[in-house]
Parts: sequence; structure tokens; C-alpha cells
Amino acid sequence: MAKNFVVGIDIGGQSSKLGVVDARGEVLAQNVIPASGSSDAKVIVKELAQAITALISQAGKTGEIRGIGVGAPNGNYYNGTIAFAPNLPWAAHGSVEFAKLLKEAVGIPVSLTNDANAAAMGEMTYGVAKGMKDFIMITLGTGVGSGIVINGQVLYGSDGFAGELGHTCAVRHNGRLCGCGKTGCLEAYCSAIGVARTAREWLEMSDEPSLLREVQNITSKDVYTAACAGDNLAVRVFEYTGKILGQSLADFVEFSAPEAIVLFGGLARAKEFLYEPTLKAMNENLLPMWRGKVRILFSQLKESDAAILGASALAWEL
Amino acid sequence: MAKNFVVGIDIGGQSSKLGVVDARGEVLAQNVIPASGSSDAKVIVKELAQAITALISQAGKTGEIRGIGVGAPNGNYYNGTIAFAPNLPWAAHGSVEFAKLLKEAVGIPVSLTNDANAAAMGEMTYGVAKGMKDFIMITLGTGVGSGIVINGQVLYGSDGFAGELGHTCAVRHNGRLCGCGKTGCLEAYCSAIGVARTAREWLEMSDEPSLLREVQNITSKDVYTAACAGDNLAVRVFEYTGKILGQSLADFVEFSAPEAIVLFGGLARAKEFLYEPTLKAMNENLLPMWRGKVRILFSQLKESDAAILGASALAWEL
Repeated sequence: MAKNFVVGIDIGGQSSKLGVVDARGEVLAQNVIPASGSSDAKVIVKELAQAITALISQAGKTGEIRGIGVGAPNGNYYNGTIAFAPNLPWAAHGSVEFAKLLKEAVGIPVSLTNDANAAAMGEMTYGVAKGMKDFIMITLGTGVGSGIVINGQVLYGSDGFAGELGHTCAVRHNGRLCGCGKTGCLEAYCSAIGVARTAREWLEMSDEPSLLREVQNITSKDVYTAACAGDNLAVRVFEYTGKILGQSLADFVEFSAPEAIVLFGGLARAKEFLYEPTLKAMNENLLPMWRGKVRILFSQLKESDAAILGASALAWEL
Repeated sequence: MAKNFVVGIDIGGQSSKLGVVDARGEVLAQNVIPASGSSDAKVIVKELAQAITALISQAGKTGEIRGIGVGAPNGNYYNGTIAFAPNLPWAAHGSVEFAKLLKEAVGIPVSLTNDANAAAMGEMTYGVAKGMKDFIMITLGTGVGSGIVINGQVLYGSDGFAGELGHTCAVRHNGRLCGCGKTGCLEAYCSAIGVARTAREWLEMSDEPSLLREVQNITSKDVYTAACAGDNLAVRVFEYTGKILGQSLADFVEFSAPEAIVLFGGLARAKEFLYEPTLKAMNENLLPMWRGKVRILFSQLKESDAAILGASALAWEL
């Protein structure tokens, strides 16, 4: 039987999403499994394998699956492991041979990469980067991830871990402490957590009136809501975030000369506030030959499908 | 007749070097042509073509040349042009189809790239990066250039200009003005000019005794000579230079996860003063998983041959 379908799985700390996908990027069936809380990788793989088999059967595609693509935090494309992933209790303190275990459990080839690389594959296969050979995907979520595509291939580097752009230095002088232990990382400023932190710092530093003064435990979503309501401080938080992001993007362009930067993730929904300051800062910090030439694009994939599509894109190579 | 030899040409502002090279990287014959000062690209190509034909004949390899590799400032691999190269009067104000013109004049296929990419090819083909698939070459000369190798291929990006690491931002806060018009570029600190400037700034800022106080128009070579003589200020200039360089190298590693960084160029001769501070700063600024794993190597190629070898390496692909 022809194998014209793939499965995409996005492994997350709270839940994992899986879907059966066709070559046009249609998700034929999908499911979400809440994290069971087990710290035993074998239990996790068994639960997932059952859900995969059931979903394939539900889609009526048993025997027609070419491969399974998995996107996971700290997933390594070269050796199929998930290692030291703080949000996954079963892979937080060591290395799990996830691709091998899952293949054995399901009997279908498995390819694995980190979530940001999977997102880049998804954009290249089904999204705004379709047809592009050189672009950089930046995922602006709780943290900042990246997937770098060079000459049509995801960049993995010598060890499978290339593309940690969230941990390049954005602010060298008195930079914020990042979750990774370093200071000044891009992630400490341009993630959802970074945006909320900027807002809280600015509210403390001045008496400027702001809708955000009435909010407890400010999140980036609160900042976005306030900006939409015309709150000046909230709008400036996004301008600042865009400036820091754009400065860093300029350095990334000087590294790999991409056609475009693709922004993805929760924070990218604040496009109307982020786009202009990000583009301006990027152009101001680029060598003249690149100014005005590198596009900043926002992912158009349906949020609910994007993670599954990204992971599934990996499976077509199998 | 088998074509088992190549020609390598390094185009420079003061002179151009050319050599006939065999597959083991032996330079069989070489020549240096001083810049004629002409601003007519056709005159330059004609002069060079005559010198090439004469050198091939001198080496006894007429009819045995597979191709010609050219390394030139602002050389573009994709379209074979040299464009807006400030140090070349005949290519300073526009774009010259150099590869095409030279091929027509000599009757041998020509491939062209920028000088730092050529240096990276040289290291990969004949030097310390032999056998490596992922490394970054940093040329520390008058300026700072770079050649990035990913999966065994030089990175050219979407437009042929990838790898301008000398113009990534090393110092965001009150950074020095760089020759490119931006501020804080790596080149403004870690080039020969940057080192001399650091020394001059520090001498002005304090009354600290230093051998350099007796030198007029301090160059990086003067700083090196003073450091060798035990001059404390001069040694600290290299420590500072290494710290800035190492910080930037960490960001580059987080981009492409190379096995090694290869340092090349005049300033790299100050290895004994640069190596430790550069390695220390790189490791301190890397994510934990890379600390202690990425090597910093110094080019071992004979200085007189390196430029020719680098360019010639390109010709084997023809």
C-alpha cells in the first residue's frame, strides 16, 4: 500500500499534540494528550504509541503512514535523543533515546528534532517560507527558539544543537539574568516572560499611568491587551522588545544572509506593535547592502495545527 | 591531457599573489604583481591574464590547469563579481564581472569568492580544518573577515554575502564607530586597527608607564612587540581584545554549533597573548552544553602560501 501520509507530534511540558497529515498539509485527524506526569520515559512512550495507533486507525490510514516526525524541547536530530529538557520530567535529568523507543513501540520510522527546527520545517513545507532556501525562524513563546534553514536544509551543526539564537547576547552591559544562567540573552527580553518583565520593571521605575497598574501578575497577554486599548506604556514595551529583537536579527542576517526572518509563537501575535520597531532596528544595524532587502514575515499557519505540521514535515524525509 | 593542477589568485589592494598548485597543496610556482593603479577593470584583467599564462608556462603545466580560483575583497561566489571594494580602484564604484572577464582572457574556468571564504576553503582543503565539516574561520587582519563552513560547504546565503561576522555587534553600549558606518562592530575592536586603537585610547586615559609611550603612530605590531617585552599595558590590550573576540565567538557557536573556530591573519600571530583570554570569554558566554567542547585553532599554513592556497582550493570544484 502506498504510504502517502505522515504523523506529526509536538511534545510539550503540559501536553503533547499529534496529528495525521497529508502531503498538502491537511491535518486529517488530531488529538491532544495531557502530560501524565510520569517520570519514566518508557511509560510515556507506551502511552504515546497507543494514542498514535488509535489516531491512525481513526483516520483510516493504518498501513499508509510513511513516518513519524517529532518536535520536542532539546530534541537532537542526529541521535534521536531528548536530553536535559527541564519541562519534561521523564527527560529532565538525562538523555532518552526517544526516536528509537517510539519506533520500536509503533513499528514506523521516527525522526526527531527540537521544536523550533520543527517549526522551521513546517514553514518551509506548508507556510510563508514555502519555496525559500535560506531563512531563519524565530519562535517567540515562553522562551525564544530558532530554526535556521540554509540552502533548503535545517542547520544542525556539528552536534545537532545549532540554532540557539535565544541565547545569543542581546544586551552585553548589565544584561538581565536568563533562565540558562547567562546574562543578557535575547530570550530574557524578547520572550513572553521578557515582555512581562519589561512591563513590570517600567511600572516600578515611574509613576506613569497605565492600564497595567490594575493587573496582578502581569503576563505578555496583559501587555498586548493594554497596547490594543491604546495604553502608551504597553505600546512602548513592544517597541522596546522590537528594538532589541531587530538589533539581534541584524547580527543573524550578517551571519547567514537569509531572504527572510519568520516570526512565530504567542508573542508574534502582537504583530501590529512589533513589526515596525523590529524592522527599523534590524535595518539600522545591518550593513548597507542588506538594508531594506531582508523581509520579516509572520507565520500564517493555524496555531492549532502549526506544531503538528512542523513535526510532520520532518517525516517526509524518512 | 589530465588536468591535475589549479591556479590560486589572491587579489589585494597593494598587490595580487598567484600560484600554480597541485592536489597536495604544494605551490609549484608563484608570483606577485604589484597593483598597477589602473581604474580600468579590463586593463587589470589583461595584466593578470598575461601573468597567469606566463606562470603556468613557467611551471610547465600549460594545458594541465583544471581551473582558476580567485579570492578577492567583496567577491561574490554566485555571480562572479567584485563590487564596491574600497581598496580596488577598478572595482570601488561599481560591479565588475571579474570571473567572466578573466575566463574570457585566459580560456580556463574561473571561480571567485571573497578572501575570507577563500581562506576557509584553504584551511579545509590543506590546513588545520582538514576533515572538518563544520567550522568558522575568522581572519584577523586590517579588518575582521569570516568564512563559515557548514556540512563541508562554505556558507554563501541567499545572495552570496553570508559571513560578515566582523560587522556583527560586539559592543552595543557606546560602541566604537566602525569603517562600515555602524558602531560597536567586532572589527572595530579585534582587527589590527582595533588593537592599535585600544592601545592609544588606554595610553591617553592614564599615566601608566608603557614601552608604547615612546612609539609614534602605534600599530598592532608595536603592541605585540611591547607585549613580548613584558609590557603590562600591551599584554592587557590583547587580553581585552581576546575577551571581546571570545564573547562574540560564543554567539557564533550558538548559531552554527561548529567543531572549531580557526583564527587566521596578522593578528593571529599574537597567539600567546590572545588564546587564553579568547577561550575563557568564549566558554563563559556559551550555553553549558558547549563549554569546553569547541576548539579555538590557529592557522598553520605558511603565511606566504596561505592566500594562494585558499583561492586555489576553490578551483578544485570546477
